[in-house]
Amino acid sequence: MVLLIHHSVSPQSRKARLIMAEKKMLFVLKEEEPWSLSQEVLNINPAGELPILVFDGKVISGGYAIGEYLEECSPQYKLFPEDTLERAEVRRLMEWFDIKFYNEVYKYIVAEKVIKRFQYRQAPNSKILKAGLNNLNYHMEYIEYLADKNNYLAGKTLTMADLSAAAQLSIVDYLGDIPWNDYKNAKLWYAKIKSRPSFKDILKDTIKGITPSATYSDLDF
Amino acid sequence: MVLLIHHSVSPQSRKARLIMAEKKMLFVLKEEEPWSLSQEVLNINPAGELPILVFDGKVISGGYAIGEYLEECSPQYKLFPEDTLERAEVRRLMEWFDIKFYNEVYKYIVAEKVIKRFQYRQAPNSKILKAGLNNLNYHMEYIEYLADKNNYLAGKTLTMADLSAAAQLSIVDYLGDIPWNDYKNAKLWYAKIKSRPSFKDILKDTIKGITPSATYSDLDF
Repeated sequence: MVLLIHHSVSPQSRKARLIMAEKKMLFVLKEEEPWSLSQEVLNINPAGELPILVFDGKVISGGYAIGEYLEECSPQYKLFPEDTLERAEVRRLMEWFDIKFYNEVYKYIVAEKVIKRFQYRQAPNSKILKAGLNNLNYHMEYIEYLADKNNYLAGKTLTMADLSAAAQLSIVDYLGDIPWNDYKNAKLWYAKIKSRPSFKDILKDTIKGITPSATYSDLDF
Repeated sequence: MVLLIHHSVSPQSRKARLIMAEKKMLFVLKEEEPWSLSQEVLNINPAGELPILVFDGKVISGGYAIGEYLEECSPQYKLFPEDTLERAEVRRLMEWFDIKFYNEVYKYIVAEKVIKRFQYRQAPNSKILKAGLNNLNYHMEYIEYLADKNNYLAGKTLTMADLSAAAQLSIVDYLGDIPWNDYKNAKLWYAKIKSRPSFKDILKDTIKGITPSATYSDLDF
């Protein structure tokens, strides 16, 4: 059995779900709130981070390890290209979204609006939010540039890089903060990702106490 | 030809040098100051981060992509174990040091003492430094625990996880901030890594204007 301990507000959790869905794997989800992790989860993953993958009884944690592990264990639907240099480009972009976007956008917008609310019962700081929205524009410009060059962010086919980016963006989009109409190519790319069967479950996600933006689950946003 | 555009204060640069030295690769170094990157470097890597690997004319950037690329292109000296689950453990620990240690220790100590000085000509903030030293103790406890369980951090043999950890630690050690005597097993593990031929060059590193700690290059520290 494959179990993913996850939360809808965790981008690495969303990415793992997308990878498994693209690979047509069957898996079960168990939700844990990142702001009040159970002792059981902390024992399994000392980093105190989601998701945690339990794959036939074996525990794998860390977004980097989980992505590579899923590709190695389920190679029939490839999410890395065959060529080593193209694979390096996919991994460069994964790091860009998993780490750089996360540090520059997620931590400013999602952490302010969602995590702070549930963990510390505090309202978001408008200065931090504004900085996050500025950073978001810089990242949207980069996605616009990549999506203009190719069908997918790292080349002609769907790869892990698209799933890393879409996982992050989908949470910010849930909060209604992405100015899609300013970024035509990025929007076309996201519409393509959003329409994939692997994305269906993500579009049904709800974050307790926060209503998704009007177009979150709309394929013609 | 293999060229690494690097800087001694960049942990991912140190890691790439250690990986290549362990793989007995020949490479040339070109130094760039992370606080004043040339336009050429910014054009090559839009993330504005070091290192950048130029491998037979092909450009690879991002610590994650470079590590995996070097393993794929030079598999004769393996730094990942054969078993998929053991590989996942190595990658979990790499993420721990490359990202978590970096965010919780490097950004508080090295960024305060070195980057701030050269980039902004400011003195370090003692509160931030103190927080970094607290975080360092937590990470040293974790290394102590790992080094007590096994010869190397991820198991019985040297892997990328040891190089990720040693790359980060060596910079903090240059500044003299590691209380080695409080962590016996961690010290034994680091002494072993420090004595490897791959580490020789790292121990000759100098950061302009900052004298290394008395025991930085001492194998019997």
